[in-house]
Amino acid sequence: MLFVGLLLCTIAASAQTLAERLGYSPGTKLIIVHADDLGETHAVNAAAMKALEGGTINSASLMVPCPWFPEMADYAKSHPDADFGLHLTLTSERVYYRWGPVAPADKVPSLLDKDGYFHHDWENNTHVDAKEVEVELRAQIERALAMGVRPTHLDSHQYRLIMHGKELFDVMLRVAHAYKLPVFVTRDWFAAYPYLQASLGPDDIVLDHTVTIEPEIPPEKWAEFYVTALKNLKPGVTEFVIHPGYDDEELRAASRERSTWGAAWRQRDYDFFTSDQFREVLAQQHIKLITWRELAGAAAAR
Amino acid sequence: MLFVGLLLCTIAASAQTLAERLGYSPGTKLIIVHADDLGETHAVNAAAMKALEGGTINSASLMVPCPWFPEMADYAKSHPDADFGLHLTLTSERVYYRWGPVAPADKVPSLLDKDGYFHHDWENNTHVDAKEVEVELRAQIERALAMGVRPTHLDSHQYRLIMHGKELFDVMLRVAHAYKLPVFVTRDWFAAYPYLQASLGPDDIVLDHTVTIEPEIPPEKWAEFYVTALKNLKPGVTEFVIHPGYDDEELRAASRERSTWGAAWRQRDYDFFTSDQFREVLAQQHIKLITWRELAGAAAAR
Repeated sequence: MLFVGLLLCTIAASAQTLAERLGYSPGTKLIIVHADDLGETHAVNAAAMKALEGGTINSASLMVPCPWFPEMADYAKSHPDADFGLHLTLTSERVYYRWGPVAPADKVPSLLDKDGYFHHDWENNTHVDAKEVEVELRAQIERALAMGVRPTHLDSHQYRLIMHGKELFDVMLRVAHAYKLPVFVTRDWFAAYPYLQASLGPDDIVLDHTVTIEPEIPPEKWAEFYVTALKNLKPGVTEFVIHPGYDDEELRAASRERSTWGAAWRQRDYDFFTSDQFREVLAQQHIKLITWRELAGAAAAR
Repeated sequence: MLFVGLLLCTIAASAQTLAERLGYSPGTKLIIVHADDLGETHAVNAAAMKALEGGTINSASLMVPCPWFPEMADYAKSHPDADFGLHLTLTSERVYYRWGPVAPADKVPSLLDKDGYFHHDWENNTHVDAKEVEVELRAQIERALAMGVRPTHLDSHQYRLIMHGKELFDVMLRVAHAYKLPVFVTRDWFAAYPYLQASLGPDDIVLDHTVTIEPEIPPEKWAEFYVTALKNLKPGVTEFVIHPGYDDEELRAASRERSTWGAAWRQRDYDFFTSDQFREVLAQQHIKLITWRELAGAAAAR
């Protein structure tokens, strides 16, 4: 009888939308405007800090293994209300500018290429050891904590921990639970990656949707893509995963082997999300901004 | 009798100047114009590559642990005649931009601070374990070799391996001998660090002098300092240890906590050593440029 009662409570909690749990009516449109890859280069840090001060980019996540992480840790300490997560990183995808693990290299050999950096990419035959992933994720979180960062959430660089199978997602989720941090997951992904839903529990925060621009969009259609996405926004909580940065010498050099997520791409994201046009569409469409800090606070209050 | 003969040969070889060993008359003035810190930032790499192509900066050394090392390894592979050494690095002296070891972190704990980066600085009470130094130096050389760099010499970032006592210098020298690479040492340092001379053997290359600019020189006296040094140059082989870089956003951000060896400093070095004034003084003073590759070749031919 008690069991049935608990089950019904759980179902009722799940049936309530995330917006309702936050105290909004179910039709409310809420977005997190989330900058990825902070810490990777100074050009990304500088653009994100500027945009965060403007207020229309309101959340971000930090790459702990990257050399410019200390700049963001310093900023996070002096801006304790900023909504910073950790962008858990297991790849070093660039060619001329690279980084490796926080954990001792000999503890995470399956994550490293022959030169000792994280792999550029994970090929089908790359064996990534789940135990080593856990060692590295914990090392990244521990370094961030030791350096004074108080993260509000976790997400995964290049979605490696989301889209590479149940075993790695479960590692991420276990580590997140250990540190009492929400993980960025959206219902949009459940059809393609059913193990996500199977692993998540009723207390895990699940966003409703996500929007991110893809290489198919030509540069001149950038603003149009985002405006259309905002005008067609569904009710609930949507994370806009964006990649602001300055198109300067450093970022051009660091990303010069390909244009995708490169310097000009990141400048376009910066330009749109700091524009008057973006502010105006938000107002016209009655879209509210929300942060991971608010989501985690509402979840904790339940 | 044989022993006395060998001893006399050794003394005779030592008595011959380095310039003579290279086939020059003892009065010849030879300089290596050596850029330090390549690999540290893109702004340093880009300035050095440009200056090397101009020809008046003719030698450099690379910081293997730094994130922009892959850019220089790629350049070194496509410029096999360039005179690149390895700038053996055991400190991460900046605040907002940092790096750590190439060796597994748990193999070199005495080299690391609480956050896992190389120490900013070595205080008097910093215990640096010589065995761990050897592990890290070998790891840096092995990564460089694996990435296709064929170094012509070794030197020491911030002179840590030169000026921190006999034990660490002997480690550097032992590793250099193992890889058959010359180490940057000059007779100028023997008075202050007598263990250098005691450890060096007759086959080690020892430069006669070095010139490097110091924080006491005001910016407006930069060119004057170098011109005076060139006009007063003594015969023999002198290494000019310089720090070219571009005074751009990246380098300003990476070095913003202090002006010494900062972005403007490095731009001044770039400007002087790529100037017509520098070329003209070289010609007027009959100063010849020489590289570590030529020094090592002459030593090997003996």
